[in-house]
Amino acid sequence: MTASHAYSIAERDAVYRVIRERRDMRHFVAGEVPEELLQRLLHAAHDGPSVGLMQPWRFIRIRKPQLREQIHQLVEEERQVTAAALGERADEFMRLKVQGVLECAELLVAALPDGREAHVFGRRTLPEMDLASLACAIQNLWLAARAEGLGMGWVSLFDPQALAALLKLPEGAKPVAVLCLGPVAEFYSQPMLVQEQWAKERPLSDLLYVDHWGAQE
Amino acid sequence: MTASHAYSIAERDAVYRVIRERRDMRHFVAGEVPEELLQRLLHAAHDGPSVGLMQPWRFIRIRKPQLREQIHQLVEEERQVTAAALGERADEFMRLKVQGVLECAELLVAALPDGREAHVFGRRTLPEMDLASLACAIQNLWLAARAEGLGMGWVSLFDPQALAALLKLPEGAKPVAVLCLGPVAEFYSQPMLVQEQWAKERPLSDLLYVDHWGAQE
Repeated sequence: MTASHAYSIAERDAVYRVIRERRDMRHFVAGEVPEELLQRLLHAAHDGPSVGLMQPWRFIRIRKPQLREQIHQLVEEERQVTAAALGERADEFMRLKVQGVLECAELLVAALPDGREAHVFGRRTLPEMDLASLACAIQNLWLAARAEGLGMGWVSLFDPQALAALLKLPEGAKPVAVLCLGPVAEFYSQPMLVQEQWAKERPLSDLLYVDHWGAQE
Repeated sequence: MTASHAYSIAERDAVYRVIRERRDMRHFVAGEVPEELLQRLLHAAHDGPSVGLMQPWRFIRIRKPQLREQIHQLVEEERQVTAAALGERADEFMRLKVQGVLECAELLVAALPDGREAHVFGRRTLPEMDLASLACAIQNLWLAARAEGLGMGWVSLFDPQALAALLKLPEGAKPVAVLCLGPVAEFYSQPMLVQEQWAKERPLSDLLYVDHWGAQE
């Protein structure tokens, strides 16, 4: 027998609670994120795992109102193009609120850095592991924000090249997330896209196989 | 003023604790993961965010000892090729323990499903958002496992085509993670690659900019 490394029941409950109650938020209210709190959240992201310890996350905090307006505009443009690509669901899509860039208290852009080709460890056959690491860091930030009572939304409706140019990213770097963060009136009780009847969730049992694809116990 | 949605201090502490203490584990000890506990962990993954609610995660639980042996072998093969690609650090790399496939109590493979091209929402310009969603799900699983006292390691050293063939994935589906899960003697106090002096961590302050790449306050 080895010692149990399990947390107390109360701690485990808190971990499962935050995982269950995290939401991808698009609706924000006025307010601020105290500087110390923002730093805690960013440190939670920075505690994320990374392939070969490459730490492939860069966070750009958007403070200039003009930049925020330009990012909002980029998202609006992609929203129109995505609607067209969706065809018969275009009108329905256009009724969804897909961003809170102008309303959220803090706006962050998360990007993959340049020079990633130097990192071979764990990426020779799966170079996209850098994005996987960055996504894990963002999930940490998301969960910590929920525990702090703040909403966060990950917006991916933008042209990455246009956003890279706007924020002066070097060649080889790539923005992958516009993160809206801040106080919310309330958290959705279900994912917003379920509430708005855009999509239905599939149960875990449909997505879990044994030994071979599609095989179930 | 809106109502505070913040969790209690004890709950917040538990969330930050698990984020801080999660480790990418490569060393496992004998033992089992009770069925009910495994299901809780998988449900935590399934509570992850997903772009356009596409839920692009499939988990394959490996039960056949022969399959486990074959996956171990695939990782061993890629380990050799990666070592060669690393050049002058090859010997150092070969001394690292990079997998616990044979020792861990439970072995899971996480994969992206086929048919992803149908999902345009949030992916028109960033198709890799499906992997980002899957990575967030895996981070949930990782954190929940840590809270339960179980270690997990994400192994990405394998040829995805060979693993896809072994597990009979359909065309268009892609395995991205071999997840080793189970009891551990102890959790690393720092990331194993830091302990083994493979790499040093950079501080958050190096990776945080304001308004433009490289600009700091």
